[in-house]
Amino acid sequence: MSKDNVPHIRLKNKEDRRIKSGHLWIYSNEVDVEKTPLHGFIAGSEVIIDDSSGRPIGRGYVNPQSLICCRILSRDWRKGLDRSFLQSRLQCALALREAAYSQPFYRAVYGDSDGLSGLVIDRFGNYLVAQLNTAGMERLKPLLLEAMQTVFEPRAILFRNDSPLREQEGLSLEVEEAVGEWPQTLQVLENEVSFTINSKDGQKTGWFYDHRESRRELARWVRGKRVLDVFSYVGGWGLQALAAGAESLTSVDASSAALDQLQANAEQQDVLDKVTCYEGNAFDVLQALLDQNLRFDVVIVDPPAFIKRKKDFKKGLGAYNKLNTLALRLLEQNGLLVSASCSMHLPEATLQDTVRATARHVDRHAQLVYRGNQGPDHPIHPAIPETQYLKALFYRISPAL
Amino acid sequence: MSKDNVPHIRLKNKEDRRIKSGHLWIYSNEVDVEKTPLHGFIAGSEVIIDDSSGRPIGRGYVNPQSLICCRILSRDWRKGLDRSFLQSRLQCALALREAAYSQPFYRAVYGDSDGLSGLVIDRFGNYLVAQLNTAGMERLKPLLLEAMQTVFEPRAILFRNDSPLREQEGLSLEVEEAVGEWPQTLQVLENEVSFTINSKDGQKTGWFYDHRESRRELARWVRGKRVLDVFSYVGGWGLQALAAGAESLTSVDASSAALDQLQANAEQQDVLDKVTCYEGNAFDVLQALLDQNLRFDVVIVDPPAFIKRKKDFKKGLGAYNKLNTLALRLLEQNGLLVSASCSMHLPEATLQDTVRATARHVDRHAQLVYRGNQGPDHPIHPAIPETQYLKALFYRISPAL
Repeated sequence: MSKDNVPHIRLKNKEDRRIKSGHLWIYSNEVDVEKTPLHGFIAGSEVIIDDSSGRPIGRGYVNPQSLICCRILSRDWRKGLDRSFLQSRLQCALALREAAYSQPFYRAVYGDSDGLSGLVIDRFGNYLVAQLNTAGMERLKPLLLEAMQTVFEPRAILFRNDSPLREQEGLSLEVEEAVGEWPQTLQVLENEVSFTINSKDGQKTGWFYDHRESRRELARWVRGKRVLDVFSYVGGWGLQALAAGAESLTSVDASSAALDQLQANAEQQDVLDKVTCYEGNAFDVLQALLDQNLRFDVVIVDPPAFIKRKKDFKKGLGAYNKLNTLALRLLEQNGLLVSASCSMHLPEATLQDTVRATARHVDRHAQLVYRGNQGPDHPIHPAIPETQYLKALFYRISPAL
Repeated sequence: MSKDNVPHIRLKNKEDRRIKSGHLWIYSNEVDVEKTPLHGFIAGSEVIIDDSSGRPIGRGYVNPQSLICCRILSRDWRKGLDRSFLQSRLQCALALREAAYSQPFYRAVYGDSDGLSGLVIDRFGNYLVAQLNTAGMERLKPLLLEAMQTVFEPRAILFRNDSPLREQEGLSLEVEEAVGEWPQTLQVLENEVSFTINSKDGQKTGWFYDHRESRRELARWVRGKRVLDVFSYVGGWGLQALAAGAESLTSVDASSAALDQLQANAEQQDVLDKVTCYEGNAFDVLQALLDQNLRFDVVIVDPPAFIKRKKDFKKGLGAYNKLNTLALRLLEQNGLLVSASCSMHLPEATLQDTVRATARHVDRHAQLVYRGNQGPDHPIHPAIPETQYLKALFYRISPAL
């Protein structure tokens, strides 16, 4: 026990190496359960982590029910995870965003990378949407709410605590208006383009800030072009392409609510006449477009994670392969393919190789002209490969050399 | 023999797989020398490449003296490597650059990625600087000069044929004014900032276009900051930082000629009073700055390739390690480290791991906020990993979590 009565968890011999190299997660098989049995702990409670010799190396929280049984929040094991701790973490995260962005629209907290494992906060001006994805964060919720209000002074806070990650932590799924009055819709500003979104019913927090830099890059390639945006959601890629001068936009999504929102956004931007929407399974719609002999100058495929777990790898890779083949076939000569993936289990090199193979297969020359990834509001933790997940590869596709 | 009397080179069984997957280089041990002995070929002469069954799969050129004994320029083995072929390749390359850039300053041809293995052309407005790095390209020189003049209509063409790569091909090292009158200095425009350079005596072609996108990103992070630019050359990073509002610039380079040019460029931009230059070995200068207790808000380390060949890996990695440690020690709290590498043999993951380890060593928290790489004028060939070489990693460095 430490002075403040926080219990200790001891790591097995050599199992502290990954932690000492910078990682923050402890798997249950790494704990010396003879010295410190896990079953006594309350899910989410605060602990001090000791190396195998008993020397404290960090402070975090525990969840005996989870495969990742401990997450470290601080190397300074003497200092408790109190309100002032949370406040200083939030301030440090905010300072980075304020250095990188001139407007208050960004992921304000990105879990481990900001020293707040289990917490995600997206900021939409005066509104905050948070996700508490671990029992430890759930337990810190009252203190966190206070700290969030002090640091961000938001008009309202919404918890989108309905991520399946919570089930693995033994937590319930719920959406909660925690502070203030939550509006029916929100405005988000990305690369100078304004969108209306719905954070209560939309996907995840209602917006995907992570592709912002790649969408900015897209502007360079679309003037006067016919753009096909597959898995369009509410138009993040496509409507930014129109704002950058694209001639037309064809959007494909399985969700009619998303496409309705996309059309409302297009109307708001006064470009509705340039938009065609197809609701349905992306693979079916792309095949139908091919059958109609339609072609596009720019094709964007930004699917949901096809590889959610390691064991989905083979099947998921097949889906990426099929999707990119369809996209390539729909491209005009010298067109641009944007091939995105948010699957953490799909390394960029593998996605590159998928496009290489599909381009060879349809007898085209592919030149990789941009390798996009997550922006500075999703900083990568150098010791935690799991924090580096996003790819947006831009290829110029020309006749085979 | 083909109809146009071009001799064939046959690959060994299974050695055609890499080529069929898209790669363009053939190593001498992959040739079936019993069927097609290499020693009869004139270095640089045109050949047709056959798979192990004798079926033609491409056309290129040969160099029996080189480890890479053949390079494929076209899958269309029937068409000769004549002037019209070269012209259409140059036009295709130019079309990509004109789509990506509004001003004629870029790498106009990037070897294999543009279907012109062995050729590099940098464009500075009406001036072209070319490098012929293989015997095959050297042999095509007269046709190429004609094609370059037709496609680019340049005022002058300079060959910087003094790359050590040429020695491996049995070629002499030389600098040649091939067309027109070559001016004493050139103007280059990068991210709206103008520089004066010297392509005849400078490094490589006189300018490094490959970091352009990362230098554009740098602008976001430097307003009001004290910037240290190590291996500054003529100021590509540093003077763009000043143009973006940096408070001061400290430049370090081993070449007094480069620093003179940097100062002339600073004068031209009217920021000379903000510039301090140190001539000398970077490691020594950084140590001296540390000893003087100087600190900076932004430190850029963009060294020459420390790992030129695979066998230099261990020693080179040590140098990256040492350099990044010095850079981290010179950083103010919450500063920005820009860690670049142009070593093809250093994977990005290894450079990331180097910064992870050095940050742990000096007890800092590193957040990777930007992963820069080469721009669209250095397109990556998806089957040739050698074309993907550049890294510029931006880290926010804060106190250890």
